[in-house]
Amino acid sequence: MDFIEGLKPGPEFDRIRSFVGAVRSEAVGVRVPPGDDAAVLEWTDGLVVLTSDAFVEGVHFQRAWSCWEAIGFRAAAGALSDLAAMAARPVGVLVSLMVPPETEERTLIGLGEGFGECLRRYGAGLLGGDLTHSTEALAIDVCAVGATEAPLRRSGARPGDEVWLTGAVGGAAAAVHAWQRSLEPDPRATAAFEAPAARIDEAIWLGENCRLTALIDVSDGLAGDARQLAAASQTRLAIDLDAVPLAPPLSEYAQRGAALRIAMAGGEDYELLFCSEPGSVDAARAAFEGRFGVALTRIGRVERGVGIAWTSASGSILPADLDGYDHFEGARGR
Amino acid sequence: MDFIEGLKPGPEFDRIRSFVGAVRSEAVGVRVPPGDDAAVLEWTDGLVVLTSDAFVEGVHFQRAWSCWEAIGFRAAAGALSDLAAMAARPVGVLVSLMVPPETEERTLIGLGEGFGECLRRYGAGLLGGDLTHSTEALAIDVCAVGATEAPLRRSGARPGDEVWLTGAVGGAAAAVHAWQRSLEPDPRATAAFEAPAARIDEAIWLGENCRLTALIDVSDGLAGDARQLAAASQTRLAIDLDAVPLAPPLSEYAQRGAALRIAMAGGEDYELLFCSEPGSVDAARAAFEGRFGVALTRIGRVERGVGIAWTSASGSILPADLDGYDHFEGARGR
Repeated sequence: MDFIEGLKPGPEFDRIRSFVGAVRSEAVGVRVPPGDDAAVLEWTDGLVVLTSDAFVEGVHFQRAWSCWEAIGFRAAAGALSDLAAMAARPVGVLVSLMVPPETEERTLIGLGEGFGECLRRYGAGLLGGDLTHSTEALAIDVCAVGATEAPLRRSGARPGDEVWLTGAVGGAAAAVHAWQRSLEPDPRATAAFEAPAARIDEAIWLGENCRLTALIDVSDGLAGDARQLAAASQTRLAIDLDAVPLAPPLSEYAQRGAALRIAMAGGEDYELLFCSEPGSVDAARAAFEGRFGVALTRIGRVERGVGIAWTSASGSILPADLDGYDHFEGARGR
Repeated sequence: MDFIEGLKPGPEFDRIRSFVGAVRSEAVGVRVPPGDDAAVLEWTDGLVVLTSDAFVEGVHFQRAWSCWEAIGFRAAAGALSDLAAMAARPVGVLVSLMVPPETEERTLIGLGEGFGECLRRYGAGLLGGDLTHSTEALAIDVCAVGATEAPLRRSGARPGDEVWLTGAVGGAAAAVHAWQRSLEPDPRATAAFEAPAARIDEAIWLGENCRLTALIDVSDGLAGDARQLAAASQTRLAIDLDAVPLAPPLSEYAQRGAALRIAMAGGEDYELLFCSEPGSVDAARAAFEGRFGVALTRIGRVERGVGIAWTSASGSILPADLDGYDHFEGARGR
């Protein structure tokens, strides 16, 4: 790659070489690869989808909680999940690495290996980026580029639509909940936290096979992201808390109310929350679940109004307590 | 803008509204504006140019040195200059803001105003981004998207080509040099530091009117970036230090050697360094200078070999001391 061959010597560029060498993921249609002032990509008609997602030490991750490979993987997955939330196919990513001056080469290699593993899994290439030092915390900002002919927005939900969720929520949150209390998480929670799935193929399939009206990924917690979708669509979402599928180990908790609280306030599950015309998902559900091995669960309906109406026949949780993670407030449920 | 209308309430989203409201710059051809999971841009055939540029407190800027408007302007200019360095026209940017929790609304508004002023100056729209809190320092990562039919790379310089520079270098470096010594900079240096020009139109004009073989922007200092161009082109650049034009107040220093040292190790001038076939710039130079009010200066030639050969008839500076800013080594010349 030019990125490696065309750079001058020096410690900064040695670190770039270490990271890029570990990523090993190239995009298709690249006219100018990483290493120049900018990347250049051939594009033949259609829509370019662009998102950026920052991942900051002490906020989104802690060194003590996982290895650098897992941190790199999660940084990539977070940005790619935003493409899934538009039903777009990934093309590539730019990555800005802000790392403390004392950062060792093996840290960059670990980050690059995990980052590249995620990119390759979802067919994204490394297009370019920036490396700079930071004063203290390590931060990774990923800009992801995708393509689609039919983007799915947050804003199309209409009263009468159904509300659906892929998979189950709370796996990553259960791990964080344990670490924050100095406990060792259940291995299934650790796995959910370390290598979250970006639902790329699932989103595209749903867009092609069901009549979706709105789509978002659950990155800041189901409670908060449901609120985003409702606000963008200028509708109310009535969500049945008893129907929300929880990931293990939360699904095994005796106290479902406490488990729900952890799941819905925590983020980084990257499942898809979407609205669809009535009946259109039921008809395709078996085919979806057979193809992807991921459950589709109807968790509510769209109504006139604003915000979220939480319902629970079992009365397991106080609806007023539920909100997503707000970076300037903290999660109310935590 | 949907960005403002479609977001749920809450302190995080109030801060996004403050920033975006202050930016006031929209891109052309936007299918999905900021506020959804990703931005979507219509694209009709051609090349997409992509770059990311991180701007970190304590590394690239200090609160004490300038107002938030200037910090926002410089963050945008740095990324747009990378598009200039490919002879690409800006389309828009994504911005990831990582800000300490106690950040006030007026900080976000100031940043947004300066950022937007730069975007509007160069015809770029705000496409989207991310807001998250950081633990301590404020960081801004800008991903810029541009378009071109004819990208100019760093790697095309051939022996016999001429080496040219737009404008003059060292304005921003002179300001930093003063601040680092607790001195008040010359007002011309402060101005150069606070609102650097991205040479977008100049680069496109040069690409169309001269036979350029390689192009880079001088963002890490002329010495370091000349070395990058030489490495990418697998040639040597012979640069005449006596010919390098210095910006005021460095141009007025009695000791040219000391002034050169400051200018060439410091960065963020964003002038263009380029190589061209012999004679092709001379023929167009008067037209360029008349149109843009920016000088073109021939500072050297391309030779067989590697690295940089510094020459100086006046012997004003030790060539061995010259290198650019390396984020993991610091500038040798400082």
